[in-house]
Amino acid sequence: METSGPHADLSLNTAVVRSFLVRFIADEVRNAGFARGVVGLSGGVDSAVTAFLASEALGSRNVTAVMMPYRTSSRESLLDAQLVVDALGIPSATVDITPMVDPFIESARVEDRVRAGNVMARQRMIVLYDFSARERALVLGTSNKTEVLLGYGTLFGDMASAVNPLGDLYKTQVWQLASDLGVPSRIVEKKPSADLWSGQTDEGELGFSYADADRLLFAMIDERHTDAELAAMGFDARFVTSVRAMVQKSQFKRRPPVVAKLSHRTVNVDFRYARDWGL
Amino acid sequence: METSGPHADLSLNTAVVRSFLVRFIADEVRNAGFARGVVGLSGGVDSAVTAFLASEALGSRNVTAVMMPYRTSSRESLLDAQLVVDALGIPSATVDITPMVDPFIESARVEDRVRAGNVMARQRMIVLYDFSARERALVLGTSNKTEVLLGYGTLFGDMASAVNPLGDLYKTQVWQLASDLGVPSRIVEKKPSADLWSGQTDEGELGFSYADADRLLFAMIDERHTDAELAAMGFDARFVTSVRAMVQKSQFKRRPPVVAKLSHRTVNVDFRYARDWGL
Repeated sequence: METSGPHADLSLNTAVVRSFLVRFIADEVRNAGFARGVVGLSGGVDSAVTAFLASEALGSRNVTAVMMPYRTSSRESLLDAQLVVDALGIPSATVDITPMVDPFIESARVEDRVRAGNVMARQRMIVLYDFSARERALVLGTSNKTEVLLGYGTLFGDMASAVNPLGDLYKTQVWQLASDLGVPSRIVEKKPSADLWSGQTDEGELGFSYADADRLLFAMIDERHTDAELAAMGFDARFVTSVRAMVQKSQFKRRPPVVAKLSHRTVNVDFRYARDWGL
Repeated sequence: METSGPHADLSLNTAVVRSFLVRFIADEVRNAGFARGVVGLSGGVDSAVTAFLASEALGSRNVTAVMMPYRTSSRESLLDAQLVVDALGIPSATVDITPMVDPFIESARVEDRVRAGNVMARQRMIVLYDFSARERALVLGTSNKTEVLLGYGTLFGDMASAVNPLGDLYKTQVWQLASDLGVPSRIVEKKPSADLWSGQTDEGELGFSYADADRLLFAMIDERHTDAELAAMGFDARFVTSVRAMVQKSQFKRRPPVVAKLSHRTVNVDFRYARDWGL
């Protein structure tokens, strides 16, 4: 398991955060007019933590875990997801996305594995949102702040959700919370992977560790340090440049579509009340 | 063809709007680091207008139209889309989404036609975004302000785009612009339909005309009139209540996921710079 490093500000008061997030999920689900939630369970720590929090917030009968393997997904991921289902005693369903994915990647000759991974992530979104409509269960997101800032996720795929409890927690903070919640240790301790191809690990693909990324992102985004200050703090200049570029280049994944403004009240410009407010 | 009704404020200066939107598309595509665009062409007026504007902004060789029929799609829609391709001389591709849609709606027994329509709209998003990644072409949205405000569209489906030129134009304004642009008249004059099932028309499904909806939405949203004022203006009270409820209930489709705020810089709360700004 990675730790959050020497920087004190990344260490969580897990008890406070846990009760805050349990309350957040309960409130947001109810405000949206729902009583139930649905989580896509990958076998990884983010979706496990989301399922644990949701089960505590809504009751174990009111959270459904959906496992959505593709034919190349690792069997171990599915077993790890099952560990979460068993630990919580929540209802679950398994939907093989292979018959949805393969016709397109074959006909469009999608050989690039990032493109294929995006197709898979979006097919999973389709399954979750259809479940949401059928069962009146809100889609709970599993994206953490590290992924969201780095753009390390699929727009309209795994980044799509109604409510995201982990979106303001860095990966190393999710790990801290996971331990406190009692997420099975093999899930907390294994190397994070999107499991889009065999042997993929997040840190191998990114080229740096989450511990390093989180320390830098916290200093860059939360503390707003300039490049010169980051250098003085000991961060490698090339690492800083590369991470800053990732955040800038992925900004489009975090914002709604750009709309050509032609009136006095434009959606998401002048007209963007929170979803449960009036007009 | 519907007109914008007696309300003067809904009538467009089409020449000004046209040149503004052509410039908007050219600028936004370039700012995003792209030179090309891709539009999902349905045979309807919104995607036709988007294609016309994009062709003028980027050059006809730099806009690709993708037609994505499902097995129940009307043949006429495809012919109308082809009219646009021929009029503009833009490259086009046709991708039958049936092999992507049917495995899921059969295995999940999606009999409800709204749910099935959402699956289709999202499969089309997958096709467009994969094309976008492969060809470095930005996905141009086709949602108009009436649809966006009423929530009459599929989240992460037809509402998904990188740049949306029509998002601040009501449907009746899109019709005005279409005539000015030279969109083939049968596309401007036909009844709008999402073509998700045979005989579907938007106005039949919504229960009111776009002309009436636009007049009311303009008074309610742009001019911010209260229910009492709207009644005094002659709008039917039940119509007002019903449209206001549609806008409120669909607010979630217009906003990013709700994130549990735990830090001083939360994505989309404190950290939401425009995509081409710095950090």
